[in-house]
Amino acid sequence: MEKGFHLIKTCEGARTGELITPRDMVPTPTFLPVGSQGTVKTLIPEEVKDIGYNMVLANTYHLYLRPGIEVVAGLGGLHKFMAWDGAILTDSGGYQVFSLAPLCKIEEKGVKFRSHIDGNEHFFTPELAIEYQEKLSADIIMVLDVCTAYGEGFEKTQRAMELTHRWAERCHKAHKNQNQALYAIVQGGVFPELRRQSAEYLTSMDFDGYALGGLSVGEPKEVTFSIVEQTVTLLPEDKPRYLMGVGSPEDIVEGVARGIDIFDSALPTRVARNGALFTGEGRCNIRNAAFRRMDRPIVSGCGCYTCRTFSAAYLHHLFKCEELLAYRLATIHNLHFIHNLMENVRNAIIDGTFSRFREEFWLRYQPTDEQVRVSQKQKWLKSKGRELDSGSAPT
Amino acid sequence: MEKGFHLIKTCEGARTGELITPRDMVPTPTFLPVGSQGTVKTLIPEEVKDIGYNMVLANTYHLYLRPGIEVVAGLGGLHKFMAWDGAILTDSGGYQVFSLAPLCKIEEKGVKFRSHIDGNEHFFTPELAIEYQEKLSADIIMVLDVCTAYGEGFEKTQRAMELTHRWAERCHKAHKNQNQALYAIVQGGVFPELRRQSAEYLTSMDFDGYALGGLSVGEPKEVTFSIVEQTVTLLPEDKPRYLMGVGSPEDIVEGVARGIDIFDSALPTRVARNGALFTGEGRCNIRNAAFRRMDRPIVSGCGCYTCRTFSAAYLHHLFKCEELLAYRLATIHNLHFIHNLMENVRNAIIDGTFSRFREEFWLRYQPTDEQVRVSQKQKWLKSKGRELDSGSAPT
Repeated sequence: MEKGFHLIKTCEGARTGELITPRDMVPTPTFLPVGSQGTVKTLIPEEVKDIGYNMVLANTYHLYLRPGIEVVAGLGGLHKFMAWDGAILTDSGGYQVFSLAPLCKIEEKGVKFRSHIDGNEHFFTPELAIEYQEKLSADIIMVLDVCTAYGEGFEKTQRAMELTHRWAERCHKAHKNQNQALYAIVQGGVFPELRRQSAEYLTSMDFDGYALGGLSVGEPKEVTFSIVEQTVTLLPEDKPRYLMGVGSPEDIVEGVARGIDIFDSALPTRVARNGALFTGEGRCNIRNAAFRRMDRPIVSGCGCYTCRTFSAAYLHHLFKCEELLAYRLATIHNLHFIHNLMENVRNAIIDGTFSRFREEFWLRYQPTDEQVRVSQKQKWLKSKGRELDSGSAPT
Repeated sequence: MEKGFHLIKTCEGARTGELITPRDMVPTPTFLPVGSQGTVKTLIPEEVKDIGYNMVLANTYHLYLRPGIEVVAGLGGLHKFMAWDGAILTDSGGYQVFSLAPLCKIEEKGVKFRSHIDGNEHFFTPELAIEYQEKLSADIIMVLDVCTAYGEGFEKTQRAMELTHRWAERCHKAHKNQNQALYAIVQGGVFPELRRQSAEYLTSMDFDGYALGGLSVGEPKEVTFSIVEQTVTLLPEDKPRYLMGVGSPEDIVEGVARGIDIFDSALPTRVARNGALFTGEGRCNIRNAAFRRMDRPIVSGCGCYTCRTFSAAYLHHLFKCEELLAYRLATIHNLHFIHNLMENVRNAIIDGTFSRFREEFWLRYQPTDEQVRVSQKQKWLKSKGRELDSGSAPT
């Protein structure tokens, strides 16, 4: 297979299409389970496939530190190493250096950082980021970008963005393996003017896809989606759009509504390991005593292995005992929930009923986070002439 | 199916047979994976079955404390609770009360103990132990016994043994569900005279099987197997013999050689989670740097999922990163190794070549523990006119 993207249909801003990778065709909108260290935590590759995923995300930063790029390359590349025959997108390490490394110094040439594992010093350049991702033999690779924290001022954000642009050019130049798709990352923080400049600058070069970086890093959800909405209008229609690090059910629905094609996030698997299980009404905490004797699955009718096999009471028991199987069964459920959501989203777009889908989603779904609930759900309900019955679960 | 045991063949002390349970026929000698809390740690029931096991062990003590006997019973019994359709043997809790509870006071009527989880006080009697195991709906259940620590003197051990006998009688009397097999537990510490008394006393009653308890609790291996050897001669030929809490590869081979039919131990799964993987040459530590780039499975030709799918380098990487998948893949390998060992043991007995099998096992296998190596391997090799090449791995 070649690399590419075919847009199939749009519906009130939402789009469905096909992402072509050398390994597989990935229907969009899609969500990528996160396997930073070459493993989707707790699962074997067959389980990830069985849930329905054929593309995952791995992290150059993590694999560079452990086991080392040369080790993975020497063992035949990342697909063989982790026994995954689907597609792989690797993040460049830009965000991880910024968010995980205890010390991170950005220069024109590249970024100096200390490992979060042993404190040893390392240096990444745009050229090395491309080289590493080529050696990992990922199907989609990312440019090295410069991230800024939420709350950073205009000028510092602007300088980071401009360096991101120069690094994007160097990545573009260094990128030789045309079987690998290379995506640029639009930066510019929460400043619409910078986001516009960044989108215009990067789309003037020919990248295989465009990502939105530096979002969902602490800013209010309203700001996130306002930036997404504005930026997406500046991106080419015929290229995939990737909202990095975003992947709660509610954020996926809102991202799709604004024309996003690709999502990734550790959230579904991370909250699963904390005992937060997705349901159509929002997250439930399986440790809650209400589940102690519950002789039915977490979600009645759910098709995931966990719900088909075990009662909520059993899962509750495993979590109370801190049994390792708990984290695995919860991960399966949450990844299945998200996969099912993506499938429903795609079908709604195909059927031209996405707007009704979104409305029905919000009528049932109760986000965990108070801020999200107030800002997003209330806004949505108000626009429909309804009031939020705050504090009580929707029926 | 009914309950029972058929002896098929004996070969130089070792025996092979069929253990009949209401769920399944279990070929012996057999090893039971330990699922104390209603889960073989890290694995789903299908994986345990796929490896080849059709009987597991669960613990009354653990399930009594969490989630509670009534909860499991209310959910349809232990098989349904843990989605396991094979056979289940439950331990009575006697050993756990003695080894896990922070405070344990033995009276004629029963044992008062504090939970190792929250310190709350509980009371077990022989009658309650039977009632709980009936409610869990296990296929094989154990009498409540009184355990003594290694190093305890003759008189204290004798008193504990005598109370074990009176409790065994009370268990026998309380045992109503004739679909469940009830096994007695021979005690008597490291004193041959007490072991003889215990075996004679308990075999004078009609139990479905006889276990050897209070062994492998710190005494030298020579003592363990000397006691096993002597006790087994006092047990009826037509009843299964169960060596409780013993399950390293070397101990299984030596137990089988002395006529043991059933083994259980958390050792194979516990050491797996510590990164100790079984090989024909002994345990290897997968965290060792030698595995960092090893592009072949832990054990070449091993048929387990882990070895068929991943390189030793990948497993090494997962352990170094403390990825949860590591513990699962290592567990699969070690349980497969033991299952394979049991199959080879049974075949050797059927073929009348067990003695050669045992010799070949010891020529390759290097136990981890120095004491075991010296006492057991040297003894074996000496009896064959060979000397132990101590310190170097056997070829």
